[in-house]
Amino acid sequence: MKDVYIKGVGMSRFGKREESLVEIMAEAATRAIEDSGRKHFDAVYVGAMNPEDFVGESNISSAVVDYLGLVPVPTTRVETASSSGAAAFDEAIYAVASGYFDSILVIAGEKMSMVSTSVATKILSEVIDHEERRYGLTMPALAALVTRAYMNRYKLKHKDLALVSVKNHLNALKNPYAHFHKEITVEDVLNSKVVADPLRLYDCSPLSDGAASIVLTSEKTKIKVRGLGHGSDYVALSSRKSITSLKSTTVAAEKAFKVAGLMPQHISFAEIHDAFTPFEIIGSEDIGFFPPGKGWIPLVEGRTGIDGDFPINPSGGLKARGHPVGASGLAQLVEAVWQLRGEAGERQIKREPRYALTQSVGGLASNNVVIILERVSL
Amino acid sequence: MKDVYIKGVGMSRFGKREESLVEIMAEAATRAIEDSGRKHFDAVYVGAMNPEDFVGESNISSAVVDYLGLVPVPTTRVETASSSGAAAFDEAIYAVASGYFDSILVIAGEKMSMVSTSVATKILSEVIDHEERRYGLTMPALAALVTRAYMNRYKLKHKDLALVSVKNHLNALKNPYAHFHKEITVEDVLNSKVVADPLRLYDCSPLSDGAASIVLTSEKTKIKVRGLGHGSDYVALSSRKSITSLKSTTVAAEKAFKVAGLMPQHISFAEIHDAFTPFEIIGSEDIGFFPPGKGWIPLVEGRTGIDGDFPINPSGGLKARGHPVGASGLAQLVEAVWQLRGEAGERQIKREPRYALTQSVGGLASNNVVIILERVSL
Repeated sequence: MKDVYIKGVGMSRFGKREESLVEIMAEAATRAIEDSGRKHFDAVYVGAMNPEDFVGESNISSAVVDYLGLVPVPTTRVETASSSGAAAFDEAIYAVASGYFDSILVIAGEKMSMVSTSVATKILSEVIDHEERRYGLTMPALAALVTRAYMNRYKLKHKDLALVSVKNHLNALKNPYAHFHKEITVEDVLNSKVVADPLRLYDCSPLSDGAASIVLTSEKTKIKVRGLGHGSDYVALSSRKSITSLKSTTVAAEKAFKVAGLMPQHISFAEIHDAFTPFEIIGSEDIGFFPPGKGWIPLVEGRTGIDGDFPINPSGGLKARGHPVGASGLAQLVEAVWQLRGEAGERQIKREPRYALTQSVGGLASNNVVIILERVSL
Repeated sequence: MKDVYIKGVGMSRFGKREESLVEIMAEAATRAIEDSGRKHFDAVYVGAMNPEDFVGESNISSAVVDYLGLVPVPTTRVETASSSGAAAFDEAIYAVASGYFDSILVIAGEKMSMVSTSVATKILSEVIDHEERRYGLTMPALAALVTRAYMNRYKLKHKDLALVSVKNHLNALKNPYAHFHKEITVEDVLNSKVVADPLRLYDCSPLSDGAASIVLTSEKTKIKVRGLGHGSDYVALSSRKSITSLKSTTVAAEKAFKVAGLMPQHISFAEIHDAFTPFEIIGSEDIGFFPPGKGWIPLVEGRTGIDGDFPINPSGGLKARGHPVGASGLAQLVEAVWQLRGEAGERQIKREPRYALTQSVGGLASNNVVIILERVSL
């Protein structure tokens, strides 16, 4: 199995965009291509969750390759709901590791702003189990059940949970690509309108447009793909043994650590899928950074801020960088690369990070991906 | 790079089905699992073109793995329009060849019968270039342009073209999984209603429900994956230099032959993407089986029938086995395996085939996949 390295990264600005999905993807890809210094690619992988419904576009991988002038290169779209960007990265790793391809351009994006919030909620709810959908459950409603269960079981107060959002908004202030550049307070979170009790508006990531892109090669660079893992879970929340832990993350993280030959304590910082604020906390526990039920304590203590001993979501996370669903998993990796290279500008983690971990949640955690990157010496 | 083998295959019956897409996929998968003798899989790859629009289902790979009781195995959906089944197979090959996974279950399917023909036409047209779509072009309309150009350029008469459909319907009579079991004549084709002039109803593959499934492993079996290639083309037909040849097939076939170390004359038989009758002929030329403009002559001479010297679409092809879009690329491979193993029953090719080639077209040939399988000695 060949080692796989990251040769270039790029992102589009996240937020509400006037451009088409293909144009946004091309914006990110053009930056990654420029950053890589490469002109030729053996294949293009495209991560997107649901361009069919969000923008009425099928065959998106062909459209992107055509727009970028990369015809006749092979191109493939990869989809695992909201972890599609990370899953596309996984497939590109296998393809390079196998020796079939030497350099691959990965692009992931979504454009969600063409539909109304209620239509977007309906589109996103297509990932949910049929029975649960029939009872009227939506993604925020399911996340609210998880939140309520966690808060009750582990005595988490909403004012402490709100700190996820406060921290991530603060980080995004320093991220020029972020959807939001707005500092918020705990009171802002608690006073924002109820989406699905107990989740309030500022507990939920926004509907965003945006794309990220990464060039992978077998050529040695400063950033090595050290480990990856991927796990699934029952689609229905009602089928699971526990809802205060997401098994697909545990499975994915255990595999990623095994492949990497590392332990959670080796990791310098993480990008965790905070589509809803409690998911950052639960994710950090499922990965093994903190014990079950204790993930919110380091948050309250300020340890997960950019200047803390274990930064989580220095990018601003899905909450504040934004969450164009198919893009998020790859955007996490772009941030990880910038931090590892020391190129994160004002939000740079100070203590020269060596290992970065990203965790991306597909659907209501039915299909999760964990990836570990390493800064190596050349 | 590890060698990759096929350990098991299975299909659902194609046609109009009452069951859900997930149930149809599970039907095919259960047969492939049984045929493989395996119970454990490292990953599940799902090929589907557009379950979002056809059945209102997103996150299909999670749903299938859940239904099959394979949680928490990693699962990924792969999409390249109508070649999605072949593209999912490709991704599984890379993953096994890389050493990351040892055995993978690939499932590909589509359920198209829940929507009306006019809605299906609209959904399928989402693969077309925006400008061409704006002018009202649909898939049959684009295929009609290709057909007209080919007929004019190479003096092909419709009565000869119709033989593709006649042959494939005859083959499907002997295929218990086929959508159609109905012998037709040249007159039936010529007298069927116009879909998009010059294409008539019997020149077009049907809207079908169905699924296919294959188990891949690194363990040596009788069927080896010998070569694969994948190529893209401009989405807009108007951007292409020629429309009587499909460049994405040429690129994919050249790569597949190079990987395999083989030439077109080594191949014993082929499954070619005959979504529209002229595509079987054009595909056979682009792969290199016959010279440009001459692919219809062996058809007229009966050489591409099951008992001919170079059988094409012994399964009945997309025309008569049916064309559940995401499934077709994988269904071609299932047929190839059955023929190579000598298990194709009444439609078995007599002269002990050694090499099989499949060609799958994504969109209007913007994203094509070619795969070569070999029967090896154990």
